[in-house]
Amino acid sequence: MSELRYNVTTREWVVIAPERAKRPEQFLHEEKLLTPDREPHQTDCPFCPGHEGEDTPGETWRSTRSDGDWQVRCFPNRYPAFTPSENPCSTAGRNLFHRVRDGCGVHEVVAESPRHNVTLALQPVEEVQQVINCWHERFVALHKEPIVEHVIVFKNHGAAAGTSLEHPHSQIIGLPVVPSHVHSRLDAASRFYQKNQCCVFCRTLEEELDDGARIVAHNPSFVAFVPFAAYSPYSLWVFPRRHMHSFAQLEPAEAGDLARILVGCLGALYFGLKDPAYNLVLRSLAPPGPGQHAFHWYVAIVPRLGKAAGFELGTGMFINSSLPEADAAYLRTQLEKRNNL
Amino acid sequence: MSELRYNVTTREWVVIAPERAKRPEQFLHEEKLLTPDREPHQTDCPFCPGHEGEDTPGETWRSTRSDGDWQVRCFPNRYPAFTPSENPCSTAGRNLFHRVRDGCGVHEVVAESPRHNVTLALQPVEEVQQVINCWHERFVALHKEPIVEHVIVFKNHGAAAGTSLEHPHSQIIGLPVVPSHVHSRLDAASRFYQKNQCCVFCRTLEEELDDGARIVAHNPSFVAFVPFAAYSPYSLWVFPRRHMHSFAQLEPAEAGDLARILVGCLGALYFGLKDPAYNLVLRSLAPPGPGQHAFHWYVAIVPRLGKAAGFELGTGMFINSSLPEADAAYLRTQLEKRNNL
Repeated sequence: MSELRYNVTTREWVVIAPERAKRPEQFLHEEKLLTPDREPHQTDCPFCPGHEGEDTPGETWRSTRSDGDWQVRCFPNRYPAFTPSENPCSTAGRNLFHRVRDGCGVHEVVAESPRHNVTLALQPVEEVQQVINCWHERFVALHKEPIVEHVIVFKNHGAAAGTSLEHPHSQIIGLPVVPSHVHSRLDAASRFYQKNQCCVFCRTLEEELDDGARIVAHNPSFVAFVPFAAYSPYSLWVFPRRHMHSFAQLEPAEAGDLARILVGCLGALYFGLKDPAYNLVLRSLAPPGPGQHAFHWYVAIVPRLGKAAGFELGTGMFINSSLPEADAAYLRTQLEKRNNL
Repeated sequence: MSELRYNVTTREWVVIAPERAKRPEQFLHEEKLLTPDREPHQTDCPFCPGHEGEDTPGETWRSTRSDGDWQVRCFPNRYPAFTPSENPCSTAGRNLFHRVRDGCGVHEVVAESPRHNVTLALQPVEEVQQVINCWHERFVALHKEPIVEHVIVFKNHGAAAGTSLEHPHSQIIGLPVVPSHVHSRLDAASRFYQKNQCCVFCRTLEEELDDGARIVAHNPSFVAFVPFAAYSPYSLWVFPRRHMHSFAQLEPAEAGDLARILVGCLGALYFGLKDPAYNLVLRSLAPPGPGQHAFHWYVAIVPRLGKAAGFELGTGMFINSSLPEADAAYLRTQLEKRNNL
């Protein structure tokens, strides 16, 4: 019989269906071209060096290597979902049933490396830390824009995760509204805080460390684990140990630890599941302000191994055909293998 | 600039990005084998006739043709996400952070035809009405099970929509919990009702009929339209005109009208977008009971033409690269073409 597990932070039940459980091998896509098999530089790639003026103008951030070339670059998305506006966004709707507002905001792309055939899982920690520095500085900067109410940092890796461009990149979007999804999670966290006088994320982390069965990696600032009520196979949460409601509060030493744990976890997925497509999302509130202390920012990594279908669409619940404890054990083995090389 | 549109029934903003808008041709998958190109009977298909005893025992419903064979059959899923239990489901959790309960419930499959190579879009209305009768009777029956708190009827068509079996089928699941997703939609509808003394779905329907730009099809009992704030390209809502909170309240004459409008809409998708993968979901509350009058059941049809990625995962918001009014106009043309044949 399957088991229902309750996700305390999202207040939703998840179906863990062990009799449908798949072994790691069943998730492998043997035919797929691994990232490093590609050419290191492709002339028709708009994110490769040489296209800075023509395809990706308006650079907003860069880190520079010792040879003077860029290592990480941030620039406006050429096909933005949200565009800057000089004026405050219009919120005039046609009527109650047809409410519209301008899609104003900021939509930037982070080219994570000048090389086309690298991926965070295989990059040196120092390079990944530069990507995090870029996310951090642009996250703070976007929140200063008057039209921006919420900032989301995310990465789509692989076609199955919704990216159309191979070049390693992530995206930062400054939205003119706070999504109701975010409101609802903050509401759950606030209620928990009021009732228990502690942060639901800090307590989750304590419980996970006590139990240990779902822990994948940890270092002085971060812990990575498979959520008890994981929505899908091999998904991971990376929590800062320190209670911070906003990614803006990240300290430089912590950025190094975040880079290290991301490389570890993404490497375990890369080697254990042969470079699966994944989405990486940074869930955070705005920089410090009043009344936001109940939240705790974190990174979610979701390999695209299952497929949300009619059941998920109709109920908002997920069926996970994998056992979180087994997924964590497998990823730990992958990490240990790499550490022993 | 893109436009944000507000979905009154889900209380979420959707990004309509016309500059990313695709023309219908861009959604076509030319290489795909269309359903009717398959063999009408496949010996290794567990849902084809001849496997009733061995692969699909425990039949719970059937409609019989004049030749004595079955036309529609319902039976337990062999790999269920939820399984029946004699005892009340255990809700004992390990602790607040590790709450679990048994995955008890009912998970049934509806074989929609004895023929392997048909699809609702191309079937006679009378055959589709038998499928709806099956959904209806099993929906009512499952709600009578003591362990069942919520029933979801859905269909996954095509691999991209999450199905692994080609044979035309749908699924009915009786859940031991009411998903928080359902609670939240009912809450939105109830608040609207309290404030405006009318049903948000009835009002939406009025507004859509007044406007007309997003209407795709209508008949005496049902109206099909592209939602004003559609989450993804060519998605459709099929609303009953009569205010009913539960699918259980459907009358036989209405079942015929539902079959007719589904064949029309699915046919428009089939011919207009070359048999796209889609999910069909029936959103309904339990049969009549107190305090549920604010809801209004409906069918959602969601072609799998876009891909939810990191942005959607992180914000719960959707970017629709298609314009709802243009999608509706295209589907109307498809329907008119068929009607004139």
